[in-house]
Amino acid sequence: ALDAADGLLAAATDRQRASEVLARHSLARVGHQEYGRRLALEFGDPLPPAVVLVPSTAHYSWQKICRALGIGSDQLRYVPVDRRFRIDVEALERLLAELAASRTPVLAAVAVVGTTEESAVDPVDRMLAARQRAGREHGLAFALHADAAWGGYAISITRAADGSRRDLAAARAEAAPHAWPSPEVWRALIAVEGTDSVTIDPHKFGFVPYPAGAVLFRDLRVRELVATDAPYVFHDESPASLAAIGPYILEGSKPGAAAAAVWLSHRVLPLDGEGHGRLIGATARGALALHRRLAAGDFGPFRVVTLPEPDLNIVCFGVRHPRFAALEEANAFVAAVHARMSIAPGRPPREVDFVVTRTLLREADYGAAPLPLLELLGWSADDYRRAGGVAVLRCTVMNPFVAEPRGRTDFVEAFAAALREVFDEVLAVSPGTAA
Amino acid sequence: ALDAADGLLAAATDRQRASEVLARHSLARVGHQEYGRRLALEFGDPLPPAVVLVPSTAHYSWQKICRALGIGSDQLRYVPVDRRFRIDVEALERLLAELAASRTPVLAAVAVVGTTEESAVDPVDRMLAARQRAGREHGLAFALHADAAWGGYAISITRAADGSRRDLAAARAEAAPHAWPSPEVWRALIAVEGTDSVTIDPHKFGFVPYPAGAVLFRDLRVRELVATDAPYVFHDESPASLAAIGPYILEGSKPGAAAAAVWLSHRVLPLDGEGHGRLIGATARGALALHRRLAAGDFGPFRVVTLPEPDLNIVCFGVRHPRFAALEEANAFVAAVHARMSIAPGRPPREVDFVVTRTLLREADYGAAPLPLLELLGWSADDYRRAGGVAVLRCTVMNPFVAEPRGRTDFVEAFAAALREVFDEVLAVSPGTAA
Repeated sequence: ALDAADGLLAAATDRQRASEVLARHSLARVGHQEYGRRLALEFGDPLPPAVVLVPSTAHYSWQKICRALGIGSDQLRYVPVDRRFRIDVEALERLLAELAASRTPVLAAVAVVGTTEESAVDPVDRMLAARQRAGREHGLAFALHADAAWGGYAISITRAADGSRRDLAAARAEAAPHAWPSPEVWRALIAVEGTDSVTIDPHKFGFVPYPAGAVLFRDLRVRELVATDAPYVFHDESPASLAAIGPYILEGSKPGAAAAAVWLSHRVLPLDGEGHGRLIGATARGALALHRRLAAGDFGPFRVVTLPEPDLNIVCFGVRHPRFAALEEANAFVAAVHARMSIAPGRPPREVDFVVTRTLLREADYGAAPLPLLELLGWSADDYRRAGGVAVLRCTVMNPFVAEPRGRTDFVEAFAAALREVFDEVLAVSPGTAA
Repeated sequence: ALDAADGLLAAATDRQRASEVLARHSLARVGHQEYGRRLALEFGDPLPPAVVLVPSTAHYSWQKICRALGIGSDQLRYVPVDRRFRIDVEALERLLAELAASRTPVLAAVAVVGTTEESAVDPVDRMLAARQRAGREHGLAFALHADAAWGGYAISITRAADGSRRDLAAARAEAAPHAWPSPEVWRALIAVEGTDSVTIDPHKFGFVPYPAGAVLFRDLRVRELVATDAPYVFHDESPASLAAIGPYILEGSKPGAAAAAVWLSHRVLPLDGEGHGRLIGATARGALALHRRLAAGDFGPFRVVTLPEPDLNIVCFGVRHPRFAALEEANAFVAAVHARMSIAPGRPPREVDFVVTRTLLREADYGAAPLPLLELLGWSADDYRRAGGVAVLRCTVMNPFVAEPRGRTDFVEAFAAALREVFDEVLAVSPGTAA
């Protein structure tokens, strides 16, 4: 569409007038209400509302976005995830075929590079291929966005210091004895460069505090679609304003310190496998060491069952005890453990040695993905449906020194010991399990 | 509408089901496209797109908002301002009558409490009255929003330390010998409490650095209209989350330091006439002292003409020299003065004693408002139309000690002297005026 607009402008004798005419018909100016009315007048029966496709693990901000932009959250279509919590590309392709058959426009599909709960990395490479097939076979054209807010910085492991692409063997040799990243994750990280746009948050895997955040577009012309003032206004009045991002962002103005911090951090630790990538690799190794330790057991009467090896740095696990008569009871136990290992009003941070978070893998969102976990915990699919979901504890490893302790403390063993202690404490006081 | 929804929920036997049914028909879920289609199916000929009314001095972020929300910037209707750069309430009332006659829905009207360029305060009290009349006479119902991003903190001058309302005479006695605030501004500031929502920026007249900012709603239930998750989800899962604002804001998470800074600042300097209000009053006195000095002249062959006394703290002025043959030439001169009194790449901040900004009062936006200024500068309405606007220099007074200098420097006199010097320098090198 941007190429078509450029072609039109190039062909016009009066470029400025052509640009104004184009702007007069833009959705940004006309608005959804009038746009829909004009479409209906012109073409009769209107199309079904255009949809946005996301994996069922997508962050809840996707709902906010679709609500705020006037698309409507009903137009968000959730694609199931597989047992590694990555989008099911076959299911995506079936959905695309259905949408094409019902003449439903597809605005965009979203690949999540590091889900908020599991740090799962969607197979971006296979999603790009699926889009190509959908174009060829169904005539669909839509944007592919990478929501790499969590995991975008992990792409730094794929580059050598001179900017060239490293090979997977070299990256994995560094992570030994842990095998990280998996070939699937490696291919997905590299494929992000093929998407149309990427969101990335320095305050997550970039190790730079709030409030920096970025959305990157492959095609610079996209900027003009969201610009509030025609660029020539800035050209004419003040060339210095060309560097200003106010017209292209929602806020208009914001503190520069966060951007300066990101710039400085990237100068000190370049975004390659020998710079920032080493931080990422060490952190992922720590997560894998923790995953291996938790999977190894030794929690007495408690059985700890981990989700599959994380794609990046988040380790989730469920807990079972012989006394738990129902999944609801196990979920309540997980909630109590979480409360005990959290900072809360009245409990100073220094009294909490390890902080965990908790996630409810809801059946409505996760479908069949947690079934292997449930089976290992000894619960049935019926238990899962009845309870509405299965609660897991969640460790976000952000410390790159977890795998190779340098001081007196082995954090992985210390965490396992602390966990065991809290399990016993909670079981002793929990009224639900006192019987 | 919120009362109607509450009534419906109260009358329902199954409150949760009723709440879900309501949500199913919300614009946030359905989206503009489907919403418009359903309306058209139900009622036949669709209504014209709903509009938002703003004064022509409104900040350009109003365009962004209408574009981003899918309303469309064409639906932004600009109401002319008077010669004090405040919204023309008679023009607003005429527009409301026209909109009612054409069955055009009005979403909201916006009062600006401190325009970005002139710090003009719209007569909020008279706008509230106009809305009441529009309801009575035309059956219109719409939200009245106060964009008090710039000037909201000035409301602190209207309160005594015990929270009661001060009277204008007391506030003005403090500002002597300057008469501030004017009775119009006083009434407008007090009337902000009658609006439906208010935006306010601590980083402006709140004297707290970026990035705090707030939008306040009179009716707490509005929060539910923008919430992404139904509140009961939070009730059920984690009572602590009730305090979280993530579901109600666009960002989801943000740094707490800015909010803590605002809280601390308000504890130290309470938001009343004896606390923060004294900072505001002293700053406004400084602006008035500067305004009086610039209006008093003594710039040699240059004639400085100020805009009317500012409502808050921004002083704007134009410049004329006998050699300027056309308004375009004067505008170029103002641009050159601005460039000389700005921080730019290659010019360290310490080499710039005083910083000014520049504004082009465009004919397309400002209409007749700058005509008195133009007349005093010796330009005609034709000159104004031909040049497209008149450029003015702009001093934002943020220093509460400008009016009563405590050190060796009288900043007002020093600024006047620096200005005169720059005028001479720029005239000497300007090719346009060398003839």
